[in-house]
Amino acid sequence: MLKIQHLLGLKGVCKEDIIKILDTADNYYEILNSENKITDSLKGKTVVNLFYENSTRTRISFELAQKRLSANPLNFSVSGSSVSKGETLKDTVQNIEAMNIDMIVVRHSASGVPEFLTKFSKATIINAGDGFNEHPTQALLDIMTIRQKLGRLEGVNVAIIGDILHSRVARSNVWGMKTLGMNVILCGPSTFLPQHPELLGVKTTTDVNEAIENADAVMLLRLQLERQDTGLFPSVREYRQLFGLDVEKMKKMKENAIIMHPGPINRSVEIASEVADCGRSVILDQVTCGVATRMAVLSLLGNKEGK
Amino acid sequence: MLKIQHLLGLKGVCKEDIIKILDTADNYYEILNSENKITDSLKGKTVVNLFYENSTRTRISFELAQKRLSANPLNFSVSGSSVSKGETLKDTVQNIEAMNIDMIVVRHSASGVPEFLTKFSKATIINAGDGFNEHPTQALLDIMTIRQKLGRLEGVNVAIIGDILHSRVARSNVWGMKTLGMNVILCGPSTFLPQHPELLGVKTTTDVNEAIENADAVMLLRLQLERQDTGLFPSVREYRQLFGLDVEKMKKMKENAIIMHPGPINRSVEIASEVADCGRSVILDQVTCGVATRMAVLSLLGNKEGK
Amino acid sequence: MLKIQHLLGLKGVCKEDIIKILDTADNYYEILNSENKITDSLKGKTVVNLFYENSTRTRISFELAQKRLSANPLNFSVSGSSVSKGETLKDTVQNIEAMNIDMIVVRHSASGVPEFLTKFSKATIINAGDGFNEHPTQALLDIMTIRQKLGRLEGVNVAIIGDILHSRVARSNVWGMKTLGMNVILCGPSTFLPQHPELLGVKTTTDVNEAIENADAVMLLRLQLERQDTGLFPSVREYRQLFGLDVEKMKKMKENAIIMHPGPINRSVEIASEVADCGRSVILDQVTCGVATRMAVLSLLGNKEGK
Repeated sequence: MLKIQHLLGLKGVCKEDIIKILDTADNYYEILNSENKITDSLKGKTVVNLFYENSTRTRISFELAQKRLSANPLNFSVSGSSVSKGETLKDTVQNIEAMNIDMIVVRHSASGVPEFLTKFSKATIINAGDGFNEHPTQALLDIMTIRQKLGRLEGVNVAIIGDILHSRVARSNVWGMKTLGMNVILCGPSTFLPQHPELLGVKTTTDVNEAIENADAVMLLRLQLERQDTGLFPSVREYRQLFGLDVEKMKKMKENAIIMHPGPINRSVEIASEVADCGRSVILDQVTCGVATRMAVLSLLGNKEGK
Repeated sequence: MLKIQHLLGLKGVCKEDIIKILDTADNYYEILNSENKITDSLKGKTVVNLFYENSTRTRISFELAQKRLSANPLNFSVSGSSVSKGETLKDTVQNIEAMNIDMIVVRHSASGVPEFLTKFSKATIINAGDGFNEHPTQALLDIMTIRQKLGRLEGVNVAIIGDILHSRVARSNVWGMKTLGMNVILCGPSTFLPQHPELLGVKTTTDVNEAIENADAVMLLRLQLERQDTGLFPSVREYRQLFGLDVEKMKKMKENAIIMHPGPINRSVEIASEVADCGRSVILDQVTCGVATRMAVLSLLGNKEGK
Repeated sequence: MLKIQHLLGLKGVCKEDIIKILDTADNYYEILNSENKITDSLKGKTVVNLFYENSTRTRISFELAQKRLSANPLNFSVSGSSVSKGETLKDTVQNIEAMNIDMIVVRHSASGVPEFLTKFSKATIINAGDGFNEHPTQALLDIMTIRQKLGRLEGVNVAIIGDILHSRVARSNVWGMKTLGMNVILCGPSTFLPQHPELLGVKTTTDVNEAIENADAVMLLRLQLERQDTGLFPSVREYRQLFGLDVEKMKKMKENAIIMHPGPINRSVEIASEVADCGRSVILDQVTCGVATRMAVLSLLGNKEGK
């Protein structure tokens, strides 16, 4: 049993809840590597995947998690839905809930939508990414991967490199990692960094070498190429030279440090192909941990009676 | 066992069949409010949801009903299908049927398509809305909601307000309600009313006060805003003033009368927000009854051997 | 157990494997005609349908086959996926595989993609059509239909008529049929015929009468109407006159010869309506055999431990 009723973000989630999720995810990870991957944990429960933003990757990871828990997933994506008929978010959710839905996994381009939904719905809400706010299951899977690879969390140094300001992945990781006693340094062009990092309890730097030299885990964020003409960064070429992790920069990392990326990667932009495919890269492990993490969150929140 | 083999519309369906569906739906309603919502009624059966018009709401309600009966739903929506390759409707359906499909739930913009399909297919056909003709499961769920809320059907007065002429929801409700001995009054701008209501056995009026003063249930229809420039009605503002149900008009309703809407609602057009969210509104109950009704129709028609 | 690990095409697949698939498909065909169509053969396995080209028909046939084997299908279609975010094919597949997927059914406009995937994935790969190369399950279902209808394969004469050059259906059929000792003649405008048929072990002709007079099975290919302006054929009208199978030409066929088409058909182009719907047409039988064939391929390749 968790203290939280919904997973809206990692901000404010206590250490015990996070550890409980990670431990449960480790168990599911074992099951996923065995012959029979299906459990009965959510048999008879219905989960709606309410995606207002395209995301095959995250949606499939959630759907797979639901099926492996024997839940019934229902996909409700924005295109072709009542949304285009002008229905309000509140009406959409109340309608979904009136069909006796147990859980709603929601992704939306506006920050705060998952929390908003809890006010109108008796269903359990799981945030699959809201605006620039949070993407808690991504951070949980990142932390799970770090724990699996490094064997510990407390005192681990993590460097997150990229467009921190617009990254819900970075934000969720910061909240979760700080709660767990990890040290975070954020790195990117100054236009991509938060103005008051001290409020988050993290350090920032525009010097990639400073960011990675002490890091046990280096996490690259995806460069949103479509944001190029905003004036926030000069050019892809310059970004790659200054912040892209290539073989040269990788040599300055600690010997056992791992390389992470939430995907999908831009090869030769924020990460060189040789780096993405090398033995220190745990990018595909993150994907595997993603299904296990989502199974853990779904089953822990979906079985409130503690069955 | 029902007398009908398919559910093409409520026109011509006998009272016994409708009551049998309503009674079965009441049973499923109980199940949907219990912990385990899944039954084995259609285990091993395959149902194709063949939607030539977008409708997430109705499609999800059907899909949920199918999954809760343990059927296998297959979604076949028009975009990306052979339809765009120029295949005829007949060929599409014969192909679907050749895959040993048990039931087809079909929505199409042309009236008569569900009946047409019965000529080429051995599968059981369920109409999920055809043109301006019928939307029988919507009417059944409306009637089920009325019976649940008012405790009776015979002699109940129903006012249906809106664009009656283009509403398959109104048409199906009229057929079903007349069969059950209910009284229907249709209300809207004269351009939205049928020319010969006596053929339907109903009254019409352009005076909303006349429509609602004796009604036990007031059903608002969705105003199709995209139809504004057809000259059939002057403006949204005028429509709202004359026909939109607001708090002022609601006061003229009978004390225990309920307020219904097939959804999705246009807040502040055909229904004021305060009215949609007030205690007399049963709009969300309709959604819940929708899943139960569809479970009843699917299981009664899908188990022809009476299992 | 098959000798092949993946089904990438019929080129190079040995006779024993093909016969084993056909025999297994015959068994599933029986099951599909019984009351309970669901088996446990792939219970707990996850299959991703990775479709980079639209194809409701083939996708539904595979999905139905998967559900009837109790596998978990996950649909991953190109629109809205990471593909549009510029991710490489290799990254997409490695990501999918990292979710512990057992099998991938892939359709792609580029020849060779299924084989390419086997280099990066531990999952079993099934080709659902790649460019102009192969569409092996289509050929297997065609051959299964011929064996069911004619009772034999060795020595059977098959005429394939249409745009052979751009047809993966024709190519897979040629490979499979030659392996099984069948005789194939390819017919179409000279611009649609392979330059070196002797390499394939088949004959070619531009004379439709020559093609059909000795055929036990006449297979029409779909004319890709969108290819009209390429200069490869003069007009639809002329194509129909010269190569379209109408009642007149059908009279020249052998008495028991059957008529086939992979669908969707262009009525009045490559096949007249009277011909498509006549008793010699086995087009809908092909659809039924398609589900059985795909069940056979999925279950034989998916149970490598021979369970």
